[in-house]
Amino acid sequence: MFPPFWKQDSHWPTVVFTREVDLAKDETVTIAVEGKHNIAIDGKLQSIDHSPLTINHSDAQPMVNGQWSMVNVPAGRHIINVKVWNQATPPALFIDGPTVKTDSSWEVTYEDKIWIDENGVAHGSGIYVPAASWNFDSVDTSPSAYRLEREEHIPVSKEEIKWNAYLYDFGKETFGYLKLYDLKGTVRVYYGESREEALDKEHCETLDVLSSPVRCNAIAASKAFRYVYIEEEDGADYEVVLADYEFAPFALKKSGFFRCSDEELNRIWEVSAYTLDLTTREFFCDGIKRDRWVWSGDAIQSYLMNYYLHFDTECVKRTIRQLRGKDPVTTHVNTIMDYTFYWFKSIADYYDYTADLAFVREMWPKMVTLMEYVLGRATDKCMAEGKPGDWIFVDWVDFPMHKRGTLAFEQILFWKALKTMESFGHLLGHNDDADNYAALAKKVKEVTDRLLFSSSHEAYIHALEETNAGAEKKDNQVTKFPNMFAIIYDFCSQETKTKILKSVLLNSEVPAITTPYMRFYELEALCQMGLQDRVLPEMKAYWGGMLRLGATTFWEKYNPEEKGTEHLAMYGRPYGKSLCHAWGASPLYIIGKYFLGVRPVKPGYEEYEVRPVLAGLEWMEGDVPTPFGKVHVKMDKRSVTVYSDGGQGTLIIGDKNLPIPPNKTVTSEK
Amino acid sequence: MFPPFWKQDSHWPTVVFTREVDLAKDETVTIAVEGKHNIAIDGKLQSIDHSPLTINHSDAQPMVNGQWSMVNVPAGRHIINVKVWNQATPPALFIDGPTVKTDSSWEVTYEDKIWIDENGVAHGSGIYVPAASWNFDSVDTSPSAYRLEREEHIPVSKEEIKWNAYLYDFGKETFGYLKLYDLKGTVRVYYGESREEALDKEHCETLDVLSSPVRCNAIAASKAFRYVYIEEEDGADYEVVLADYEFAPFALKKSGFFRCSDEELNRIWEVSAYTLDLTTREFFCDGIKRDRWVWSGDAIQSYLMNYYLHFDTECVKRTIRQLRGKDPVTTHVNTIMDYTFYWFKSIADYYDYTADLAFVREMWPKMVTLMEYVLGRATDKCMAEGKPGDWIFVDWVDFPMHKRGTLAFEQILFWKALKTMESFGHLLGHNDDADNYAALAKKVKEVTDRLLFSSSHEAYIHALEETNAGAEKKDNQVTKFPNMFAIIYDFCSQETKTKILKSVLLNSEVPAITTPYMRFYELEALCQMGLQDRVLPEMKAYWGGMLRLGATTFWEKYNPEEKGTEHLAMYGRPYGKSLCHAWGASPLYIIGKYFLGVRPVKPGYEEYEVRPVLAGLEWMEGDVPTPFGKVHVKMDKRSVTVYSDGGQGTLIIGDKNLPIPPNKTVTSEK
Repeated sequence: MFPPFWKQDSHWPTVVFTREVDLAKDETVTIAVEGKHNIAIDGKLQSIDHSPLTINHSDAQPMVNGQWSMVNVPAGRHIINVKVWNQATPPALFIDGPTVKTDSSWEVTYEDKIWIDENGVAHGSGIYVPAASWNFDSVDTSPSAYRLEREEHIPVSKEEIKWNAYLYDFGKETFGYLKLYDLKGTVRVYYGESREEALDKEHCETLDVLSSPVRCNAIAASKAFRYVYIEEEDGADYEVVLADYEFAPFALKKSGFFRCSDEELNRIWEVSAYTLDLTTREFFCDGIKRDRWVWSGDAIQSYLMNYYLHFDTECVKRTIRQLRGKDPVTTHVNTIMDYTFYWFKSIADYYDYTADLAFVREMWPKMVTLMEYVLGRATDKCMAEGKPGDWIFVDWVDFPMHKRGTLAFEQILFWKALKTMESFGHLLGHNDDADNYAALAKKVKEVTDRLLFSSSHEAYIHALEETNAGAEKKDNQVTKFPNMFAIIYDFCSQETKTKILKSVLLNSEVPAITTPYMRFYELEALCQMGLQDRVLPEMKAYWGGMLRLGATTFWEKYNPEEKGTEHLAMYGRPYGKSLCHAWGASPLYIIGKYFLGVRPVKPGYEEYEVRPVLAGLEWMEGDVPTPFGKVHVKMDKRSVTVYSDGGQGTLIIGDKNLPIPPNKTVTSEK
Repeated sequence: MFPPFWKQDSHWPTVVFTREVDLAKDETVTIAVEGKHNIAIDGKLQSIDHSPLTINHSDAQPMVNGQWSMVNVPAGRHIINVKVWNQATPPALFIDGPTVKTDSSWEVTYEDKIWIDENGVAHGSGIYVPAASWNFDSVDTSPSAYRLEREEHIPVSKEEIKWNAYLYDFGKETFGYLKLYDLKGTVRVYYGESREEALDKEHCETLDVLSSPVRCNAIAASKAFRYVYIEEEDGADYEVVLADYEFAPFALKKSGFFRCSDEELNRIWEVSAYTLDLTTREFFCDGIKRDRWVWSGDAIQSYLMNYYLHFDTECVKRTIRQLRGKDPVTTHVNTIMDYTFYWFKSIADYYDYTADLAFVREMWPKMVTLMEYVLGRATDKCMAEGKPGDWIFVDWVDFPMHKRGTLAFEQILFWKALKTMESFGHLLGHNDDADNYAALAKKVKEVTDRLLFSSSHEAYIHALEETNAGAEKKDNQVTKFPNMFAIIYDFCSQETKTKILKSVLLNSEVPAITTPYMRFYELEALCQMGLQDRVLPEMKAYWGGMLRLGATTFWEKYNPEEKGTEHLAMYGRPYGKSLCHAWGASPLYIIGKYFLGVRPVKPGYEEYEVRPVLAGLEWMEGDVPTPFGKVHVKMDKRSVTVYSDGGQGTLIIGDKNLPIPPNKTVTSEK
């Protein structure tokens, strides 16, 4: 039981679903709800034909959960309102009739404001929004009963550690529910992402006690593990150990793929895909051992990887909504200022890949109030500084780096968030708002360039602090963080980018990044500067380094300088590090976008480009999923072949531009 | 299933309860929660000794609801944090140890913001508030299982209406759960607050179908009724009809009482007390038949009556909190602008009667945000006008009265709300805020006096509208509404009050009020002007009028001009009117405050006065509950005797002032 430390909001317990229908003839519809409900047609409450009620029910509350009823809707134009109350799980409605059905055309409100005056006349002024809908397409599939899929796995080996104590190895990192068939007595179960962790009864991060006085099949709560060490207490016994592997169904229909002439790179791609699959659950979570929370900085990377693996847009939307919660804003997203800024950027990315304006429209009011919160905490000079209670994260670093005052890194993210507000403001027709955000973005850029760019260092320096006397004090430390974002977010001119590349990104005196999290952006910046040749060996060294240490999924942090069990420790705990962490999977994105070279040029791949780069590989081949299907790229040293299910593409090789019409294979000799 | 049409908020599903303890020696405490929980002592998570877990549980979620565990707290100073998650019902914690116990000294937050950095160091910045606590003083009394009390009642008569169809009369209006012992087959049950309603199968407001294939005891969902008409379907049968009367336990310990020489007035007081008892439930609701919602305008009257009957401060606080809900404010309280204003006033009243500053401090942030909402909708001239979606209620009236533009009635309530903010602002040390509210109140008063007081009418006129061309247009209609509030809220000078009394309140050409709701204020205004002699016969005529028509509780609306079943109709429905409506019980307040004459002069009765007025009665006697016990008053035409359990009182008769020391009986001859 380890919930997050920031505000968690509930669903609205009472909502009204509504739709206008126009029927050629009467129809009888089936209605099922999760909760209690009433139905009004044109404002008149209908009697509901429940099953007979409340015999000897202690609370005298008729239960309609899971029940269904029939209602007649007469011919003609009518407004159907169904009010549903449900405290425990989100109110949900299912209607199935010859033509009337619940789908994405329904609207919903948490406040219909329909009141009846003394003459019985109804007045209403509720604000309705599109109701959420998904694939719950029968009376038996209730949203609250939704569970991920499961599959039974058996251990690949069993090792006797001592008398009545065995270590089971499932062969690779997994997520699931340990099952002991025919258990009698008490056993103690120690889980490990590593062999060391499972065998360390004192320090392993997760454990269970399973106990049954009579022989039965026991199933533990879900855990992340590769190894399981089980000790039997006196007289205890069980027959078989199995794991119910749990996964999101999208993992079955992998639409992105990659193969090339380098087997290590293939393995890096495969392990990245498995790492992302394990962390793609109801939401995109950070790691599967702990804390399984949804973190904005982690999630934005998962989204981008996902656009090159599964294109699971529902999970992206769920995660973005979940991160934001309800108004009022009481803290930064996950309490972290950088994570607030990534949240804005993640919607821009989502729109670029999907062209789903309806979702942008849904989120806009919450973007506005979150930006109000940000602006309310910025200084008069448009400096985003951490206030008490704000966490300034940036990255886990092994070198000294303070987080006081205004960090150039945060300023560049702040600017990007304002630019996102500007462009969505225009897109949604809120032009005055857009102009305000544009002016603020300009101010942020101006003050950042003036105070935080150092011509002598040819770099953005770390921070600006105010001393007690109010005089500004610069911290001239140079780190990769602000500088790589200046490149990726197009914060500075091409000329400045070139300087930064040399003075920071390719400068071995600047401290190395030791998390896959920030290596994501570092490698992206290098790719954007056309240095795939350099990125390929870096990927092989860094992610290959983890593979050579036996990784079956990629880690939260990897410092090649560390040795042995040092690799397992973090947060002051010997096994505190997560060995299956979403942000470890970034090669998916780097390879898809900068090696296969596929990316949208207009939102939702209406137009896109393919800029394949071999970077020393003999050959490569892969699919990138898109809203319309996939783009297939195959390249060797002599030719490139591209095929796409839709969109207007351009194949770019050097100075050569070649149009890619939908459903035609295009080949270019080099 | 008939929920309100305004936003309903949930509890916070995850909260952290916290307290610092300082123990002379180790102690083992019992911990029980509603929800799932973890425990940290000084930031370190403790292992919880649950009963062994999750054998064959389909969802693999250990259930800890209703379970308890033991935790050891070591000697010395320690901070205990218990994090509880519960979606279905509010998270709740019970700790019982030798010295460590959950009580009002604990604090709680929905966002502890405690994060662990890479070195394992914890940082926290949550905002904590006092945790709610009440009389759940054992591991077996969980807050979510709280229910009102019940008592079995039998009908006073049974009448055969036709073959196998009977009308049962319970003798008076009641609230409860109908029980049919040994039911077999199907019966149809029609409830009536009146005989007519129960026998009108088409139009009665509530009905049930009870059905059982095998003989069993059936209990229906709660209803309000005096009469129950039951028709048996073919072959159906039952033995006994009973009702489980449900009531708040406070109704058993009536601390206010009143008797006098006029038996009709005694009956009015008794029926008022019963009406308030029936509508005092988990919250103060409006009526018990429908809609059982919590309405701010109704509730503020219930609070005031309650201060003279039960002094149930917990129910007052619950209702005030419930009416306000969470931020952000999306609508007026109950969607009604006047009800927003009453909400502020109700906290001022609460403080006057209880001196409970802790509650004012709790509500202050929500008062500020609600006032921001109000001010955001007022015009530049400080006119509170209804915007689209705002309901301007005032009263149910039988004469034409529009609600457009700025109503003098609303302005006076607006002013009072601002004055409340001013005085609480000073009380809590927010002096700048207080000054702002004072300046706004002054502006509201000035504009209202200038534009809405008519010297020719010697009255506040109804409204000011803006025509399409923008020119102001006065509506010179004179109603009692603004004018009686100008007196009660001390909005105008004594001189103006005297004019208003004559030109409006005692002017028979001004339309009469036909709801007990607004008669509450009308009679209060007359009493404040010293006209108890006039109020006594009005009470006897109006409330006595309902009694003569057979009322056993007081009604939502009573127009003496109506006849027969006209009295039962409302909202266009023949039995739409509620015959047990809280606002019908106002004689409790009028009698206690203006006849027995007891009221606080300093908050919480620290000082109070007794100004008894016989108003033509031969004698009267009564108790008024106070925070310290009660004030007893006995008066006849020759003498007054007063006794009080506490406080510094003053007995005022004419020009004579006599101190009332605590615990001493004081008698004054006239």
